[in-house]
Amino acid sequence: MNEGVKQYQLQQEFVTESGFTFPDPVIAYKTWGKLNKARDNVILICHALTGNAAADEWFPGLFQPGGILDTDRYYVICTNVLGSCYGSTGPWTTDPRTGNPYRADFPDITIRDIVRYQQQFLDEFDIRGIETVIGGSMGGMQALEFSIMDERVRSAVPIAMGKAHTSWQIGISHAQRQAIFADPNWNDGYYEKGDGPSEGLSAARMMAMISYRCQQDFENKFGRDLQEGHDDLFQVESYLNYQGQKLVNRFDALTYVYLTWAMDTHDVARNRGSYSEILGEVDIPVLVIGINSDLLYPVNEQKELAQLLGNGHYEEITSEYGHDAFLIEFDQLNNIIKPFLSTYKTHHAV
Amino acid sequence: MNEGVKQYQLQQEFVTESGFTFPDPVIAYKTWGKLNKARDNVILICHALTGNAAADEWFPGLFQPGGILDTDRYYVICTNVLGSCYGSTGPWTTDPRTGNPYRADFPDITIRDIVRYQQQFLDEFDIRGIETVIGGSMGGMQALEFSIMDERVRSAVPIAMGKAHTSWQIGISHAQRQAIFADPNWNDGYYEKGDGPSEGLSAARMMAMISYRCQQDFENKFGRDLQEGHDDLFQVESYLNYQGQKLVNRFDALTYVYLTWAMDTHDVARNRGSYSEILGEVDIPVLVIGINSDLLYPVNEQKELAQLLGNGHYEEITSEYGHDAFLIEFDQLNNIIKPFLSTYKTHHAV
Repeated sequence: MNEGVKQYQLQQEFVTESGFTFPDPVIAYKTWGKLNKARDNVILICHALTGNAAADEWFPGLFQPGGILDTDRYYVICTNVLGSCYGSTGPWTTDPRTGNPYRADFPDITIRDIVRYQQQFLDEFDIRGIETVIGGSMGGMQALEFSIMDERVRSAVPIAMGKAHTSWQIGISHAQRQAIFADPNWNDGYYEKGDGPSEGLSAARMMAMISYRCQQDFENKFGRDLQEGHDDLFQVESYLNYQGQKLVNRFDALTYVYLTWAMDTHDVARNRGSYSEILGEVDIPVLVIGINSDLLYPVNEQKELAQLLGNGHYEEITSEYGHDAFLIEFDQLNNIIKPFLSTYKTHHAV
Repeated sequence: MNEGVKQYQLQQEFVTESGFTFPDPVIAYKTWGKLNKARDNVILICHALTGNAAADEWFPGLFQPGGILDTDRYYVICTNVLGSCYGSTGPWTTDPRTGNPYRADFPDITIRDIVRYQQQFLDEFDIRGIETVIGGSMGGMQALEFSIMDERVRSAVPIAMGKAHTSWQIGISHAQRQAIFADPNWNDGYYEKGDGPSEGLSAARMMAMISYRCQQDFENKFGRDLQEGHDDLFQVESYLNYQGQKLVNRFDALTYVYLTWAMDTHDVARNRGSYSEILGEVDIPVLVIGINSDLLYPVNEQKELAQLLGNGHYEEITSEYGHDAFLIEFDQLNNIIKPFLSTYKTHHAV
């Protein structure tokens, strides 16, 4: 578990959209700052696919002095999502019916399940107001659903995603999953811990890394340079190998598959009505942020989302880092989000 | 072998850049039209990664009446590249030293090897002049090298590539190769024919298909529609599965790996000098064509190439199909290439 992350056992069982019951759901979380008396000075941070509750480790620039996460003022909460391998209930949790880990018997979950899971946690902690919900990519999908599903939320900042997972994003995830499934160690998802499909997961991560970046970033970093000491390995190949292995060392293939499936369920209109209805009814201010070089979730999706929202605003990050810019361009994020928060500030100080 | 494709055994041995000798090199080829007396009314077509010598099957719109490949006038030649699985010497050719197929003992080859292999064929057929060389993607790399390496060539039309394979393209190919290597049937490249790494090759093809298309194309085709008769398979997933399987049925994983490696060697400056020198010295007219939606070989690469060439010209295809547009937008190709050919026409009719 990352530093400062705690685990909490929810007092109520949790039932997924598909009807699967977790009798003893556990959620990992981390907090910063102090909850005020009104219990409403909360900023909720939602993490992306391979993230965790230690938001200060992957959003450091938002926590630093001058950053938007002023912990003198706000009580900042980040929870680890249902299905993850970072402390919340997931595929490696013991299935009480068998005494063994769920593994591939873990149920399919949705972004809305992930949001309701956090809501239950916030309910049990008696959180009464949320100044804003911020997240990028899968975190942005949660932030958007929070703006629809949770009346405590007073504003939201979804970054680098859209109103629904599109066929473009589903296709990219699908190809990655097929690389995992091609690894014999996948074993239909019933592998032993520590003996998982590391080659497949590594290949999937390489594909993902490419979709998170862009041509210019790679050119700036690598050109056609060979890796030192090799005459047949380009630096970019060595870099991707390293990134693949790094994920294998810190992440789990079952979680990768389940959470990418969950992202594919993202669609605010699903079982609700039309996009214009659903999003038009959201009357809290929502700041949608796009990244000009994002190939995975191109800016037309964020622009469309901001337009559809009842009180939507669009801002753009200029970067050569592609989709990953939301984990890199902290100065721009702070500069864009700070005026939004002060314009729409509604909560009272501690 | 595709219809009309013949095999020819080169009379001379072929030695690769790396010094490997093929004693009995075979090349598959197809021709259309009639060679004139001067033996110089040739249009040479170079195929892409998974292509073959039957150019009329994958470039049909250039052959149709009104298309640029007027076979009353031109003698059109397309050969299958060295290393391919479509009739030319490749990994499944018998290694005379062992009596077994080369498989992973096939040598690393380069785009220049592929070009020299075709040149040897053209020499043995006593071809004395080439009106133009046309190719897209890997075919464009060959067309560009032909414009540098072959004095018979009077013009060239490289499409959707650049002066060198960049780290962006190398990275994308690398991730695909890792998916193949993650499949246990890869067996370090020593698999039995018909028992290859089909799951890995299929996953690689899915990734490739994504890089060949773009967001808008997928959105237009699939949206978030589910595949008929399924409640958990998106149309885009079914489409990618189909594309993966289709390639597995018609292609070979060793060739996929060897030819993507060959593409990674593409760099006109390699062992020659600077880009501006090498390309500046090319004084034949070269029409470089880009595709506005190409994510794999973005248009900045074609613009740069046209600029660097001594007699370079740039034109752009407008399409929602991404990189694959060079195999789809035949009307635009004909309309762009036709005036180029007539402006710079130098050959004499049959």
